[in-house]
Amino acid sequence: MTVNQNLKTYSLKDIENFKIHGRTDETQDPLPLFFNGSGVEVNVTGTELWIDVEVDYDTHEPWIWTALNDAFMSRQMLTAGTGSVCLFRGMSPEAVKNVKFFRELQAMSEDCGCRLLVRGFRCDGEFLPVRSRRYKLEFIGDSITSGEGTYGAEEDTDWVSMYMGSSRNYARMVSDALDAEYRLISQGGWGVLTGWENDPRHNIPSRYEKICGLAEGEINEKLGAGKPYDFSSWVPDAIIVNLGTNDASAFNQPAWTDPESGQTFEQRKEADGTFHPEDLARFEQAVADFLKMIRRNNPTSHIVWVYGMLGYDLTLAITDAMNMYRKDTRDSNIGFLQLPVMTGETVGAHFHPGEKCHVKAAQAIIEYLKTLLNA
Amino acid sequence: MTVNQNLKTYSLKDIENFKIHGRTDETQDPLPLFFNGSGVEVNVTGTELWIDVEVDYDTHEPWIWTALNDAFMSRQMLTAGTGSVCLFRGMSPEAVKNVKFFRELQAMSEDCGCRLLVRGFRCDGEFLPVRSRRYKLEFIGDSITSGEGTYGAEEDTDWVSMYMGSSRNYARMVSDALDAEYRLISQGGWGVLTGWENDPRHNIPSRYEKICGLAEGEINEKLGAGKPYDFSSWVPDAIIVNLGTNDASAFNQPAWTDPESGQTFEQRKEADGTFHPEDLARFEQAVADFLKMIRRNNPTSHIVWVYGMLGYDLTLAITDAMNMYRKDTRDSNIGFLQLPVMTGETVGAHFHPGEKCHVKAAQAIIEYLKTLLNA
Amino acid sequence: MTVNQNLKTYSLKDIENFKIHGRTDETQDPLPLFFNGSGVEVNVTGTELWIDVEVDYDTHEPWIWTALNDAFMSRQMLTAGTGSVCLFRGMSPEAVKNVKFFRELQAMSEDCGCRLLVRGFRCDGEFLPVRSRRYKLEFIGDSITSGEGTYGAEEDTDWVSMYMGSSRNYARMVSDALDAEYRLISQGGWGVLTGWENDPRHNIPSRYEKICGLAEGEINEKLGAGKPYDFSSWVPDAIIVNLGTNDASAFNQPAWTDPESGQTFEQRKEADGTFHPEDLARFEQAVADFLKMIRRNNPTSHIVWVYGMLGYDLTLAITDAMNMYRKDTRDSNIGFLQLPVMTGETVGAHFHPGEKCHVKAAQAIIEYLKTLLNA
Amino acid sequence: MTVNQNLKTYSLKDIENFKIHGRTDETQDPLPLFFNGSGVEVNVTGTELWIDVEVDYDTHEPWIWTALNDAFMSRQMLTAGTGSVCLFRGMSPEAVKNVKFFRELQAMSEDCGCRLLVRGFRCDGEFLPVRSRRYKLEFIGDSITSGEGTYGAEEDTDWVSMYMGSSRNYARMVSDALDAEYRLISQGGWGVLTGWENDPRHNIPSRYEKICGLAEGEINEKLGAGKPYDFSSWVPDAIIVNLGTNDASAFNQPAWTDPESGQTFEQRKEADGTFHPEDLARFEQAVADFLKMIRRNNPTSHIVWVYGMLGYDLTLAITDAMNMYRKDTRDSNIGFLQLPVMTGETVGAHFHPGEKCHVKAAQAIIEYLKTLLNA
Repeated sequence: MTVNQNLKTYSLKDIENFKIHGRTDETQDPLPLFFNGSGVEVNVTGTELWIDVEVDYDTHEPWIWTALNDAFMSRQMLTAGTGSVCLFRGMSPEAVKNVKFFRELQAMSEDCGCRLLVRGFRCDGEFLPVRSRRYKLEFIGDSITSGEGTYGAEEDTDWVSMYMGSSRNYARMVSDALDAEYRLISQGGWGVLTGWENDPRHNIPSRYEKICGLAEGEINEKLGAGKPYDFSSWVPDAIIVNLGTNDASAFNQPAWTDPESGQTFEQRKEADGTFHPEDLARFEQAVADFLKMIRRNNPTSHIVWVYGMLGYDLTLAITDAMNMYRKDTRDSNIGFLQLPVMTGETVGAHFHPGEKCHVKAAQAIIEYLKTLLNA
Repeated sequence: MTVNQNLKTYSLKDIENFKIHGRTDETQDPLPLFFNGSGVEVNVTGTELWIDVEVDYDTHEPWIWTALNDAFMSRQMLTAGTGSVCLFRGMSPEAVKNVKFFRELQAMSEDCGCRLLVRGFRCDGEFLPVRSRRYKLEFIGDSITSGEGTYGAEEDTDWVSMYMGSSRNYARMVSDALDAEYRLISQGGWGVLTGWENDPRHNIPSRYEKICGLAEGEINEKLGAGKPYDFSSWVPDAIIVNLGTNDASAFNQPAWTDPESGQTFEQRKEADGTFHPEDLARFEQAVADFLKMIRRNNPTSHIVWVYGMLGYDLTLAITDAMNMYRKDTRDSNIGFLQLPVMTGETVGAHFHPGEKCHVKAAQAIIEYLKTLLNA
Repeated sequence: MTVNQNLKTYSLKDIENFKIHGRTDETQDPLPLFFNGSGVEVNVTGTELWIDVEVDYDTHEPWIWTALNDAFMSRQMLTAGTGSVCLFRGMSPEAVKNVKFFRELQAMSEDCGCRLLVRGFRCDGEFLPVRSRRYKLEFIGDSITSGEGTYGAEEDTDWVSMYMGSSRNYARMVSDALDAEYRLISQGGWGVLTGWENDPRHNIPSRYEKICGLAEGEINEKLGAGKPYDFSSWVPDAIIVNLGTNDASAFNQPAWTDPESGQTFEQRKEADGTFHPEDLARFEQAVADFLKMIRRNNPTSHIVWVYGMLGYDLTLAITDAMNMYRKDTRDSNIGFLQLPVMTGETVGAHFHPGEKCHVKAAQAIIEYLKTLLNA
Repeated sequence: MTVNQNLKTYSLKDIENFKIHGRTDETQDPLPLFFNGSGVEVNVTGTELWIDVEVDYDTHEPWIWTALNDAFMSRQMLTAGTGSVCLFRGMSPEAVKNVKFFRELQAMSEDCGCRLLVRGFRCDGEFLPVRSRRYKLEFIGDSITSGEGTYGAEEDTDWVSMYMGSSRNYARMVSDALDAEYRLISQGGWGVLTGWENDPRHNIPSRYEKICGLAEGEINEKLGAGKPYDFSSWVPDAIIVNLGTNDASAFNQPAWTDPESGQTFEQRKEADGTFHPEDLARFEQAVADFLKMIRRNNPTSHIVWVYGMLGYDLTLAITDAMNMYRKDTRDSNIGFLQLPVMTGETVGAHFHPGEKCHVKAAQAIIEYLKTLLNA
């Protein structure tokens, strides 16, 4: 190998020009990437670029993907340790290359040791300003928004990192089509009121107001995950909430028992198969409350609740809650959008939406947002 | 021309085996086809088949289309008079041919003279039994469901018969995909509460319980249009209501003045562009009332309200009304489904959904009904 | 019906502005439409337009289709007699409407009585000049180019007029995409050297130099079908020859016996399934000879031989003949283009290419011609 | 990180069950992967699998991609050194996982130091037999077959490893669709007779009979690249030759001068833009000679020459050569297939076919081979 003698090592604080994607504690060095779709973006000259990272986990290793000039280039597992990933080699030195390095894996509430930190870059060129995109979009969701099933064979059912992703995710597709930056807050199995297994702790609203309320434990605490998120720092044009799918599943699951208190929690169905009115009301209240929380933190953003990639069961309940909220607050800057349901042709791994299903969902959201934003 | 000496003339009452599509007064002879998608279907042997019809109108001539063995074969204008349309010639005599003859043009509330009657057939074969399809579907709607714009060039804006149709209509596509028979009740410009121009007489519910409440005047009266429709005679598995688009338009139009009473009617917007709460409530009440009317007449049918091909403005209002109805009646056999909005790529003639938009809408409904019907 | 008192009757010779499509004897009045894709085109103002026609046949009735402002509007059978077809009614009088009336049915070599003549129009507007399209294209072919199977159900196998057409034909699609006028010369079952059943009279070259050598008998003679075609009157930018499919079939058929002379004709295969070299050479000679004939009559037109919608068996033989011709004549203004083969997804009626197969073929030809014509 | 204590290290010779893809010297340990699409495949149980590799290069680093249960999972650059790539972690131990590890980068005739060697695996499971696929396919080509442009943005023009690949390559798509194994022999810029710049050394036939005649230099010699390839060891059902594109370019380039001998080589055009007959004949002879070479080494394989993704200029010349060969040898087990030309919608990086163009090419080849193989 011919060694490139011109590479210089930069820590992030040495670099004036780079862009952070995703919610994080930007005062940290190295910089934690908590969420899928979190990452760093640079515009560089030079022939070669490396990124220096630090990785650890108890069980679930992070995956990353990279893009060069907005084109997907690589996707790979990162294993534990301090290391480097080469982002390009051997290119024309003068040309400005846009490079993005993104986390594929969702924040892992089940693995407190899981972390991916960016230490800096090595490069033989210069770091130039990175342009802002036209819009800012926030996506809130569950396993669908964590991209579970966008990679993997249809018969794969293990619940492992490699089947999740942001690279084939509808959120990325929407953002690319509208020239938008995006932030994701999602967690597989979680809902608005409760997780799919009736665990009421597994609700996204409880974590929404921290930088990354999903990343737990001491290490993540030190990395700033538990700090309040400064909503004023990045004001979305639209917030896309894709929740309800696990809340619907909970109605079909047995009661969950709190291992500590012994208390149980259950969303019930009636004998005739309809939702128990009280439990449905409890779900609707959670939707309305979450809308209030989102609005309190994002006074100007349009909020659109999207739903349906894995079934339409709670369509009327969600819209009922939205109408309650609308009447209660006189806030009309909200919308509801159904997404095309997954079919035998669009299924991915692990009975989750595959890339084709994400493409269809993205098309619906793109059309919706184009009208909204006059894009 | 070689004359076919073997043709025999049959009036409808001579024929034991044939099937009527669409709501009509089946005691009439000749048989009126009131709606788009209304028609007659036969299974015949023989080499040649003609249908004998009677046509008249003041202004708007009817169009028809025919299918042979479920494949589209012809589409044409019918001009005034008593005449015949040849449905096939020169075919193998033994083979059983399935032939359908459908009206393309919606019931014309604006042309009391418009009528299309089937007198009978001429054939050199035998009429055999026509099989029932697996499902029955009723579609209720406006110009979208009248197929306006499914024919014609994008720049065409005349409001004439030839741009309307049932042959490239989502209702036909859904029915073909599910092996269903369908009945259509639709009228361009009409709504649940009011027409697009705020004319409150132009609401579908007021005509729903007659055989064809849209066909007015003395002639149609004689043809049985005004008789009560016997809902028990044909029980739909699902009723697809595609209304609200003109109700949304009304909010952007000036008040309508009744030419006789001088009274005005108007759906208003607030200064900030939101819907006036009272007028919105009036719309919602109309939706809820129509659901009650549909349910009263169709106790077992699933009712799905579909919406969105020309914009999503009333999504929350419609679902609010559906929730009101649901809570009020404890009727859970209803659903709400958004349809893909028309785009620059799917627009047809006269700023209406083109065939591609109908295809996309049909796909959404097909997936919805497949799940519902376990099809 | 309200009678339109303003309609005036025009014979074709009364009209200064109209355009004839397809090869015909333009001195005839009424004007014969010999080929599928033959027709007349007008630009008119007014509210209403009718076309007056004269139709006859022994067995096979003609079908026609119409377009308004380049959008497909109607398709119907014409039965024997003198009659009229209404092309539009009730339109805005000032707007200029472009109307095309096309024959669907190929020239019928098997029905000497088959004819479709245009007598004139009835209109309450004015006839305005019709623009020339950007290009002129000639298509030569067999049943594929006659559009056989573009209408009809997959299981339909009768050989009748209604399954043929120019409206869903690749020739129309190519021409529309390139803004071209087109002329078609095609006959189902025919080849370059021989028909599918080894009948050597069924070769297109023998009819190519007459106006319509395929329309035989006394009546067609009077209509000018047998006159030499004046190639200088309409010079194609490109000539697309889609022949060879029936020549390939002949190799799999028994010998044909001339009913008059008792002589036989047969294209043979060897025991190992390959083509008999002598018979293949005979086919290749016919291809080369036809290229010479086309070139002699069209000195400047690009000639592209397209092949493959129903199999690739003669690809090498056709290109061998083209190379022979090229070396022999030093004519490089020729090309060879394979078309996508029909599959289970693109099959139409009667085991012939359906509309989807024509769409794919058209895409290939469009790309080819765009490069050629710098379009 | 929790350390997996159960991982055992295997060199390839320790493993009874694994499959080698691509031409290589199978006696080598570690095992060289010379070509894009070369790789190793295992069926394993266990929770975790790593592959141990050795990588070096002077300039152009190799990229690899992996598949789990036939689904694309990862794509990454490998930088110089001895290292490991984790192929999966944390999976259910009992399930049998099919894992493929493939080289993305073509054999690099321009970088004698470029190599990728497989040393072995680390795993906590068992290696089970790998099934044979239904067919064997060999693909021979240039940059198109090296997948150049299947990754990268449309504006990217650097000639670097990362834009090449086998993962989005038509060869992979065809093979997956037909359940085939494949071997690739391709080199960007090379032709049958000459490279795109008229360098006559850049012809694929001169390298075809060695294991990897494209990998030069001492190191590759030791790795067995220069050994004769044993054609009997892997007999393809079909050989797909996609060459001619660079031979066509050469006609538009200035003469090439041999830096050592000073001799020049040039494929010329006439003043009228046609190919110089002598130079065209020289190209045709090269095609015919290559067919003979392929046949000599593969007596039973069907040979199909595919052409056209970057233009149709040499269609007639290639088919002329094929006909020469056919007449000369009486070998009919050959075919010619045009592929859909790249358009503005299917272009990838560096003016080369993008993934969409490969998809279209693959569809054409799949249909062709299905007919051929009765698949």
